[in-house]
Amino acid sequence: MNGPADRAQLALLLEVAGTPKPGNVDRERDLSALRFEHFLAGAVGSRTGLDMAEAGDPVGAAFERSVAGMATQEGGNTQFGSLLLLVPLVSAAAAELTPERCDDVVSETTVADAEAFYRAFDHVSVAVDDPPADAAALDVRRGSDAIPAVRERGLDLQSVLELGVPGDDVAREWVTGFERSFAAADRLGDRSGPVVDRTAAVYLSLLAERPDTLVVTRHGESVAADVRERASTLAERDAVVTDRPAVTTFADDLVAEGINPGTTADLVAAGLFIALERGTISV
Amino acid sequence: MNGPADRAQLALLLEVAGTPKPGNVDRERDLSALRFEHFLAGAVGSRTGLDMAEAGDPVGAAFERSVAGMATQEGGNTQFGSLLLLVPLVSAAAAELTPERCDDVVSETTVADAEAFYRAFDHVSVAVDDPPADAAALDVRRGSDAIPAVRERGLDLQSVLELGVPGDDVAREWVTGFERSFAAADRLGDRSGPVVDRTAAVYLSLLAERPDTLVVTRHGESVAADVRERASTLAERDAVVTDRPAVTTFADDLVAEGINPGTTADLVAAGLFIALERGTISV
Repeated sequence: MNGPADRAQLALLLEVAGTPKPGNVDRERDLSALRFEHFLAGAVGSRTGLDMAEAGDPVGAAFERSVAGMATQEGGNTQFGSLLLLVPLVSAAAAELTPERCDDVVSETTVADAEAFYRAFDHVSVAVDDPPADAAALDVRRGSDAIPAVRERGLDLQSVLELGVPGDDVAREWVTGFERSFAAADRLGDRSGPVVDRTAAVYLSLLAERPDTLVVTRHGESVAADVRERASTLAERDAVVTDRPAVTTFADDLVAEGINPGTTADLVAAGLFIALERGTISV
Repeated sequence: MNGPADRAQLALLLEVAGTPKPGNVDRERDLSALRFEHFLAGAVGSRTGLDMAEAGDPVGAAFERSVAGMATQEGGNTQFGSLLLLVPLVSAAAAELTPERCDDVVSETTVADAEAFYRAFDHVSVAVDDPPADAAALDVRRGSDAIPAVRERGLDLQSVLELGVPGDDVAREWVTGFERSFAAADRLGDRSGPVVDRTAAVYLSLLAERPDTLVVTRHGESVAADVRERASTLAERDAVVTDRPAVTTFADDLVAEGINPGTTADLVAAGLFIALERGTISV
């Protein structure tokens, strides 16, 4: 390992290797069109953008580059949300990886960063909620077509992500000092055993905590609440360790219903990076 | 994907993901002290050296750097042999990835490349045969201590690897225009389906072809011959596709006996790189 970009790339790889991670691609499970190998290629492709973040390039440009590289594989969107967390974390790590420094990185973002963020949506299709009626011009799914509206309103990237918070727990990290990412890192460090096993346990604990916002977007709040509730029951008895078959059954059910708690996987990737960076886990 | 270094890194990741690969770590199997996550970290750490090869740096220096980075993980030697194939292949790919260009890369190596090769052994413990009695001073396990002998005899890296050919099928690639690596690439391109499945089938076909030299080194020729024979029986009926349980049984037996056909896995990594570079497989 050399620097933060290496560790961010490793975090992407460890995240997808962590198994069982019900509803997500993992070491033991492919989804129909989205396979393990696509995540491997996404992690490889992301690297140049992560290098830019480590080198101190603007967060927006580094993010757009990482997404463009990630999107060169054939599976579609593999790690957009993970990169939206990792890029500012790598940027902060170049100085000091603390919630305060992360806040600084976020508050220092500019309109140019926001423009690059919108351009990132040109590279890959991302599942997001409809924006509020008064913000249709800023719909991220418009990609670079939305840039004139961004400029007109003078929105920096922090402001853009604040708009996204209600329905997106990746955006929420940007305005909370990456609260759950740091919590995930603490939990990863507190557990023992191979990192890929810790990853599965921490994934379940995060899924138990709040409804996954990607599941809300795709299936509604009721389904997301049910998934959270079921994860909670399993996490309470640390089922990844004590009753793995029960977790596998949960995973089978989610896959059968097409439910993919992708936001929770993104938070795990961020937690893995922080834990690697702080040395509380190592491989 | 950007260039050859990206594709070489992806080849390392796809190799370890390919399953079942009897006797080796793969997506479904860890060995006791050597786990999947170590290979992920090894692939991340290798990257700087692969970048050097892509940039046209000397093969020896690029190889030593890739090994130093690979060795920062805690599992020990994960990809030494794979990198000894990938570095000259990446170097060749910067011009044209043909057996002829690979021969040129090999024949252009210098004494300085040989010195760097010996230094690479300082970073990690590698299983190799005893050298011939008259070449004890050149034993690679001496690492950089052997460099004065290398200089005194004026050996370039090609000459050093020629000395290793009898017991090492990675070294053999260097003197045969990477014959089996290119053959592996052809087979990967000829098959269909997810790359990780093709990888498993091509691994079996290579293992069926010649006794794995790492198995010879560690367990003797008779054991290696038995492994080859058993692989041959499975490969003849394409058991990765037609009878996966039989391949899994073979894998169980090899792991139980501590038999690790690592040289064959190295050849698969090289084949994956060539096939990715030529576009006969994609992810």
